[in-house]
Amino acid sequence: MISTPYILFLGDAPDQLAAKVAQGIKDWRPDNAVGQLRLLGCGADLGIADLTLDQARDAGVKTLVIGVANRGGVISDTWKKVLIEALEKGFDLASGLHNLLRDEADLVKVAKAHGRALHDVRVPSVQYPIANGIKRRGKRCLAVGTDCSVGKMYTALAMDHVMRARYMKGAFRATGQTGILITGNGVPLDAVIADFMAGSVEFLTPDNDDDHWDLIEGQGSLFHVSYSGVTMALIHGGQPDALILCHEPTRKHMRGLPSYTLPSLEQLRDMVLPIAQVANPDCKIVGISVNTQHMLDLNAKSYLDDLEMRLKLPATDPFRYGAEKLVDALDTV
Amino acid sequence: MISTPYILFLGDAPDQLAAKVAQGIKDWRPDNAVGQLRLLGCGADLGIADLTLDQARDAGVKTLVIGVANRGGVISDTWKKVLIEALEKGFDLASGLHNLLRDEADLVKVAKAHGRALHDVRVPSVQYPIANGIKRRGKRCLAVGTDCSVGKMYTALAMDHVMRARYMKGAFRATGQTGILITGNGVPLDAVIADFMAGSVEFLTPDNDDDHWDLIEGQGSLFHVSYSGVTMALIHGGQPDALILCHEPTRKHMRGLPSYTLPSLEQLRDMVLPIAQVANPDCKIVGISVNTQHMLDLNAKSYLDDLEMRLKLPATDPFRYGAEKLVDALDTV
Repeated sequence: MISTPYILFLGDAPDQLAAKVAQGIKDWRPDNAVGQLRLLGCGADLGIADLTLDQARDAGVKTLVIGVANRGGVISDTWKKVLIEALEKGFDLASGLHNLLRDEADLVKVAKAHGRALHDVRVPSVQYPIANGIKRRGKRCLAVGTDCSVGKMYTALAMDHVMRARYMKGAFRATGQTGILITGNGVPLDAVIADFMAGSVEFLTPDNDDDHWDLIEGQGSLFHVSYSGVTMALIHGGQPDALILCHEPTRKHMRGLPSYTLPSLEQLRDMVLPIAQVANPDCKIVGISVNTQHMLDLNAKSYLDDLEMRLKLPATDPFRYGAEKLVDALDTV
Repeated sequence: MISTPYILFLGDAPDQLAAKVAQGIKDWRPDNAVGQLRLLGCGADLGIADLTLDQARDAGVKTLVIGVANRGGVISDTWKKVLIEALEKGFDLASGLHNLLRDEADLVKVAKAHGRALHDVRVPSVQYPIANGIKRRGKRCLAVGTDCSVGKMYTALAMDHVMRARYMKGAFRATGQTGILITGNGVPLDAVIADFMAGSVEFLTPDNDDDHWDLIEGQGSLFHVSYSGVTMALIHGGQPDALILCHEPTRKHMRGLPSYTLPSLEQLRDMVLPIAQVANPDCKIVGISVNTQHMLDLNAKSYLDDLEMRLKLPATDPFRYGAEKLVDALDTV
C-alpha cells in the first residue's frame, strides 16, 4: 500500500508520452496528484501545480511517484539528487521502473536512515498463496481482449469512474505497474511466480459485500501466446461474474507477433466463456469495449451498432462515448 | 545440465514412497542410476547396488542426487555429513527439495572450495526469454489432463520408452522437479516468473529435425483453477502437433479442490483443441491415456473400449497395457 497523496516526478521527460504513468494518475485519481516536479528540459506537463519538495510537504504529500520512463534503463545522477532529497525530506518513493529503487545502494541507505519506504511496484511485495478456488462473496468484472493493449485497463478505469459517480460499491483492482501506481496498491501479475498467479488474484479480490463490484484490470489475451497463461490465471483466480470483451478493429496482427492474426470477437466469446465457467458457472459476457481511435466517428458508430446486432451485447468505446453502457450491463448479472 | 551418471541418495527414507524420485530415475533412466546410498534405518530399496562414495567414484559417478523427501523441511546433520563428504570427493549435488542447497552456507562453502556444482532443480537457473510464437521445426507432443496428477508425466515417459525401443528420434522434455532429475535437465515451470512461462517452454523445445518428437511433460490442467495458467503457457509455448488426453476415472473431485468436479474427456477435448490451434493450427488430439489403477482389469479394458468408441481415439493405460498405441498414433500427425 503506497501512502497518498503524491507528487508526480516527471524528471526530464522528453515529451508527454514519456510521462503516461503520471498522466494516468492525474486523469483517474486527481485527488492523489497534488502537484508535479519537473527538471530542466522537461517536455511534459500535466497541467497541475509545479511544486518544490518543501511545498509538497506542506500540502500533505506522502510519496514521490516516478511517473516517467527513464532513458537507457539507468537512474541518472540528476534524478538521484532529487530522489535522495525527497527521502531526506520525509517522502516515500514509488516506481514502476525496470531497474529497481531497492537495487540502488545510495537510495536504500538514505531510505533506511530516514525510515522511508521504497516501493518498486514491478515486483511483488507479498508471498501470495496458491489459489483455493473457493467461491467468494461480492461480484467481479474482468475485461478480456482479443489482443494485448486493446484498452482493458482503460475500460476498467472508465467503468470505475462511472460507478463512483453513481455511488455504487466498487473498486478498481490493479494487476499491472501503471494501475498499481494509479490506485496505490495491486498485484504486479506478470512478475508473480507461475504457481501463485491465480492465488495472487484471489488475494487481490477477496470476499466482499454482495453488491460490491471488483473491476479487475485485465492482462494479455487468451490468443496471445506469449502471455495467455497470465490471462488464464486472471480468469480462474478472479472467478468473474461478468466479462467485457475488448477489441481494436484496425490492428493488423497480434502485438509483437507478426505471424498471428487477431481472433474475431465471436472467437474470443466462444473460447473465454467455457473457461470462465470452470471457476464460476454463472459467469456471463455482458458487453463489448472497442478502441476506435483509428476510425472516423461515423465509422466507429456504425461499427458499434453492427456489433450490438451481431453479438446481442451492448458495445461502446469508453474513451469516446463513455462507459455508462457497460456499467448498466452489470445489472444483468 | 546435471552431469551423469548418478548415485541416488535415499538417506533415512521411512518407506519406498518417500524415495519416489529415486525410483523414477531408476525406472526410466537405469543407465544413470549406478547405485544407491542408504543411511541407517532407511526403509527404501531400489534393488540396485549399495555403494560407498569411493565405490561410486570408481564407477564413474558424477553427481549425488537426493532422491528422497526430507522430513520437516530441514536438511539434517546426518544428511549434511554425507553431502559434504560427497562434495569433497568430487561429486556435484542435485536436489528437488523445497529448502535449497544454495541456502546452506556450509554446502556452498565446500562446493566452492572443491569447484563442485549445487543443482537446485526446483528453481530456474536460466533467464528465459519472452515467447515469440515463431513456428519451430520438428514435432511436439503434449499430454493434457482433466486434472492434476492423472499420469501426464508417466504417459510421456512411457511413450519415450517405446520410442527409444523403436529407434525413433525423440526426447522427453521435463517441466517439473522429478522429470528434471530423471533426465538431467528441463524447466521447473511452476517456479518461472509469469511473463516468461511460455518462453521457457519454447526454450525447452527448440527447432529440431522434421521427424524428431519432443514429448513435453504436462503440468496442471486447464480445469484446475490453481494451476491452469501454467497449463496454458505449456500449450502455447509448446505449440504441440499432437495432444494426448489424460484422465483418472475414479477421482471424486479436482485435486485439492473439493468443490470442483472433474470435466469429462469430451469437455477437455472441446476446450483444449481451439486453444492449442491458436499456436499451431494443425494440432490434433491423437490419443487418450487413462490411469486405471483403481479399476479391475476387466473394467479397465471395457472402459478403454468404450472410450475408443465414444471419442474415436486410441485409448490405453500406459502403465498397465503399454504406450505402444499412443506412439503409433503419432504417425497420424
